[in-house]
Amino acid sequence: MSAILPSIRSPRDLKRLSAIELKTLARELREEIVRVVAKNGGHLASNLGVVELTLALHLTFDFSIDRLIWDVGHQTYVHKLVTGRQRLFPTLRQFGGLSGFPKPEESEYDHFVAGHSSTSISAAVGMAQVRDLKGEEHHVVAVIGDGALTGGMAWEALNHAGDSGSHLIVVLNDNEMSIARNVGALSTYLARARTAPSYLRTKADIEAWLQRVPVVGERLADVSERLKDSFKYFLVPGVLFEELGFTYLGPVDGHNLAALRDMLTLAKATSGPVLVHCHTEKGKGYRPAAVNPDRFHGLGAFNPRTGEPIAVSQTQTYTDVFARTLVELAKQDEKIVAITAAMPDGTGLQEFSKLFPRRFFDVGIAEQHAVTMAAGVAASGYRPVFAVYSTFLQRAYDQIIHDVCLPRLPVVFAIDRGGLVGADGETHQGVFDMAMLRQIPNMTVMLPRQAQDLVDLLAVACQMEGPVAIRYPRGATDGQKLRPPQPVNIGRSLCLQAGEQVLLVNCGTIWDVTKDVIAQLTRAGITPTVYDLRWLKPLDPAIVRAMARHQLTVVLEEGITAGGCGSALLEAASAAQIQPSVMLFGIPDQFVPHGSRQELLQSLGLTGETIATRILDKVAKM
Amino acid sequence: MSAILPSIRSPRDLKRLSAIELKTLARELREEIVRVVAKNGGHLASNLGVVELTLALHLTFDFSIDRLIWDVGHQTYVHKLVTGRQRLFPTLRQFGGLSGFPKPEESEYDHFVAGHSSTSISAAVGMAQVRDLKGEEHHVVAVIGDGALTGGMAWEALNHAGDSGSHLIVVLNDNEMSIARNVGALSTYLARARTAPSYLRTKADIEAWLQRVPVVGERLADVSERLKDSFKYFLVPGVLFEELGFTYLGPVDGHNLAALRDMLTLAKATSGPVLVHCHTEKGKGYRPAAVNPDRFHGLGAFNPRTGEPIAVSQTQTYTDVFARTLVELAKQDEKIVAITAAMPDGTGLQEFSKLFPRRFFDVGIAEQHAVTMAAGVAASGYRPVFAVYSTFLQRAYDQIIHDVCLPRLPVVFAIDRGGLVGADGETHQGVFDMAMLRQIPNMTVMLPRQAQDLVDLLAVACQMEGPVAIRYPRGATDGQKLRPPQPVNIGRSLCLQAGEQVLLVNCGTIWDVTKDVIAQLTRAGITPTVYDLRWLKPLDPAIVRAMARHQLTVVLEEGITAGGCGSALLEAASAAQIQPSVMLFGIPDQFVPHGSRQELLQSLGLTGETIATRILDKVAKM
Repeated sequence: MSAILPSIRSPRDLKRLSAIELKTLARELREEIVRVVAKNGGHLASNLGVVELTLALHLTFDFSIDRLIWDVGHQTYVHKLVTGRQRLFPTLRQFGGLSGFPKPEESEYDHFVAGHSSTSISAAVGMAQVRDLKGEEHHVVAVIGDGALTGGMAWEALNHAGDSGSHLIVVLNDNEMSIARNVGALSTYLARARTAPSYLRTKADIEAWLQRVPVVGERLADVSERLKDSFKYFLVPGVLFEELGFTYLGPVDGHNLAALRDMLTLAKATSGPVLVHCHTEKGKGYRPAAVNPDRFHGLGAFNPRTGEPIAVSQTQTYTDVFARTLVELAKQDEKIVAITAAMPDGTGLQEFSKLFPRRFFDVGIAEQHAVTMAAGVAASGYRPVFAVYSTFLQRAYDQIIHDVCLPRLPVVFAIDRGGLVGADGETHQGVFDMAMLRQIPNMTVMLPRQAQDLVDLLAVACQMEGPVAIRYPRGATDGQKLRPPQPVNIGRSLCLQAGEQVLLVNCGTIWDVTKDVIAQLTRAGITPTVYDLRWLKPLDPAIVRAMARHQLTVVLEEGITAGGCGSALLEAASAAQIQPSVMLFGIPDQFVPHGSRQELLQSLGLTGETIATRILDKVAKM
Repeated sequence: MSAILPSIRSPRDLKRLSAIELKTLARELREEIVRVVAKNGGHLASNLGVVELTLALHLTFDFSIDRLIWDVGHQTYVHKLVTGRQRLFPTLRQFGGLSGFPKPEESEYDHFVAGHSSTSISAAVGMAQVRDLKGEEHHVVAVIGDGALTGGMAWEALNHAGDSGSHLIVVLNDNEMSIARNVGALSTYLARARTAPSYLRTKADIEAWLQRVPVVGERLADVSERLKDSFKYFLVPGVLFEELGFTYLGPVDGHNLAALRDMLTLAKATSGPVLVHCHTEKGKGYRPAAVNPDRFHGLGAFNPRTGEPIAVSQTQTYTDVFARTLVELAKQDEKIVAITAAMPDGTGLQEFSKLFPRRFFDVGIAEQHAVTMAAGVAASGYRPVFAVYSTFLQRAYDQIIHDVCLPRLPVVFAIDRGGLVGADGETHQGVFDMAMLRQIPNMTVMLPRQAQDLVDLLAVACQMEGPVAIRYPRGATDGQKLRPPQPVNIGRSLCLQAGEQVLLVNCGTIWDVTKDVIAQLTRAGITPTVYDLRWLKPLDPAIVRAMARHQLTVVLEEGITAGGCGSALLEAASAAQIQPSVMLFGIPDQFVPHGSRQELLQSLGLTGETIATRILDKVAKM
């Protein structure tokens, strides 16, 4: 039973706790997070890693006035628990419940949306600038992980923030030591020395002394200038940040609450842009996660005592099918190279990376670089396969156009998590990809309907002459046994069933719904013709001819309808000078919140029953 | 008359020239570039700045084997002149002539497409990795300006390149001293010291000595480690790059051919990633451009003797109208803030920046940061206006979705260069914006048809509650006298003419063509109904109703038709259960090369005459 946590109704309640009570609270927070994530799934290791940091932030600042921006945002469970959302916390990531990410609608303490990486410093710069324009005094704090710092836009923002000189605090939550390896006693010592007033006097003394070095021509002046910098470098471990115009504080032990509070208090008192380098351990305080933080990054339900997953899925996922097929193709074609932007696990590329370490590239959270690097690989005659979640590929829209499609380079985009992704919600739904990609000249877009299609089409994708996107969903396949790649007719849709009156066009991942629609219509006495689109681009003229032959065409897609697959068919019909009656079923013009795929489909009116009813209504009126 | 230039048919011919002949050649190259750009317009200052650098590159490397990747690519005129394209050079930027950017189809010496910024290092990494996999030995060289280095993807690439350890050479063409201010005699000296074998021995000696420092506990070991780094920092001016894993060479005088060749030769011999810091002067060798490099960045025809523009345009451009209107609005609303990504001139924001310096932000070539910073500004209650060229906004597609539209923040996207942009060609055409933006929930998209619409709609955009994009073209308005902002009916299209049979829907910037179509149809005895769409999103139901009333709907848009305005109307008609006959006229499924807007419209079949003929054919068959 928690003793202290229930008494924390707002961050203000933290301030009356003693050091010992805070320690107890930290333990209770960890227990509550393990308890709920064990049930609902979610991000565990990263949240366990920021318990003390989150408490220190709320103890040092007043975020009813100050601004707090979490980068990526999956590490905000502690923040949610201490900002009035305890009661709702058991609904985390469930349909209608708390989001797994910051959400301004949920709380006045959530100041900015997050879900994608590397955005926090930019938002903080904007907020800091407005604060200065308004003549206000509050603080703006961005919390960013070392991984997110590999994203280019974080550098764009650091560059601008450092140059602008406005006060803002970037907390670098360094949990993998990938940025700086100088963590240790001396660094802590130096950091303290550097930021304490006595040090500042010393630095001033030394700068004064350096000014007095007699200037014998330009050369010596330059020497003294460099000597000064050299001295600074000796004292300051975060020279990279200092060079960009930040005052660097740290590193500080991210699990030592007192040290964190001291450091953040110093950051508050320091003018201009400040970077606080904080070292945390992912999974801290929960043994299974601390030992294996990668497995406890984002996960499903598990046994909280052992950390073992509750239901080990025996069925294969689309990610598995992609991964295995790519390995097989790569065994036969040594030119195949795989690229991931910090997602070797999520995209299934571990096996590939083990078998072909030299042909595997993890470039960090850097989708833009990943795509243009792939273009460079393709321009040199190799076959890059960039495996990426649909939602994160959005980062590289320009690079796809400019560096891949314009020169028509054979890059394969293996787009995982196409369609609804479930509990991660609105920042992660893979619903824009089809509309985004089909508008680009020279692009080919493949939509496998089931696992064997993914096998067959991926094999073709790795042979084609220009850029190819192949899009598949999150989650399990229907379990069919897979064969080696079968021959494919390029650009040809599949007629799955000949019928009359109604033409159903299935577009990729929504096949389960389409099957249900077929069943319902059949029960109602209508045998629809069923096509699987398969190739969104180029579009098969056979489907357009089929549209002309049917009274009603119904298009089903798991993507935004604006500019999507149905839209493409309408354009093609218009170009062919036919005027079919068409119903489009897809994601409407809204952001889709979190929930299970079934719950979301239901809420969007995308179930077999609803769609069949609407079709039957329409047919009745024809 | 050029004496040496005509004899240079390939880079091989450079290698037999003496130092004096090379000097003469450099002068001749500058003369030829000034001569042709004075006629055709183009990028001048940047090309004059890289004459010696380009020669040094071709003298040191063999780019029939080695790879050369120009970032942004507008500085490749010298490169084109020495790689077999002299005869075609007078066709530069003209329809059917040489592109103003690298183009692999043009020459075996153009290894990668360019036009947008900050992509070169990524492409180089890809090529270097394939070279290593193939076991080849050639060099890969990326040439990137200091401005392009503010783009985040360049940092993503540096981070990956430094970590990978593969040999590759990044030439930093620093022409504004914005990166490092340590240029000077000592730096040159230090650089030479650092890269000469004698220095390398010294460094090794010192490292050996440092290893012998007695280790008394962790603290002293760390001290020696830091002392070593400190020493390195003292010697190496480019610590930022060294920290990222690069060997830093330079800075070197970018107009001293011998020094450049020495430095590049050293870079060739250095293993791993190398950065050569080269200092050049924009406009070098042509006084008007050297004195005023900004005005000679990209420009139209001018008098080569004086540098004065030949035809000073008296008519106002859309950019002028935007700029003046925004200034007027900003005088009345102190919450309006303007943001540019390194284009204060191109987007017309200079006047704003002078009048409201604290409310003006130039964030560098950093569109992603610009958009999310704008989101931060909007989240704090101010009204950011991000003025940006259509083609460059592509960089921020994900940020528009995730950071602006999802939280529905009132950011105004002032999209300049919407539609065909002319001589800059395929990398710069503003044709994807409408399809890209209309698919995003919560977005409003305005398409002013002429200058007064831009005034009126911009005023409304700065008042609306959510994100708004307002798109206007490059070039002159029709010169109509402008009034202050007039009232606007939100979301309402304009019926410009009531007619029968044919409904013409004009979508923004293509109004000149639409007018011509109207005239041609009228001459042929058809009085079309004419609507101006005005709001691509939300779409006015009145237009859909009008579609139902006409035999034929014709949509004209200056953007990609796949997913564009006509596509939106087809979707709306389908949703309204009507089946109109619709003809879509827009940019077809291809990249559009360079040429004048008129030439391009002609080549795409988008003239009044062609369109009217097709409409009349269709009507005749109805």
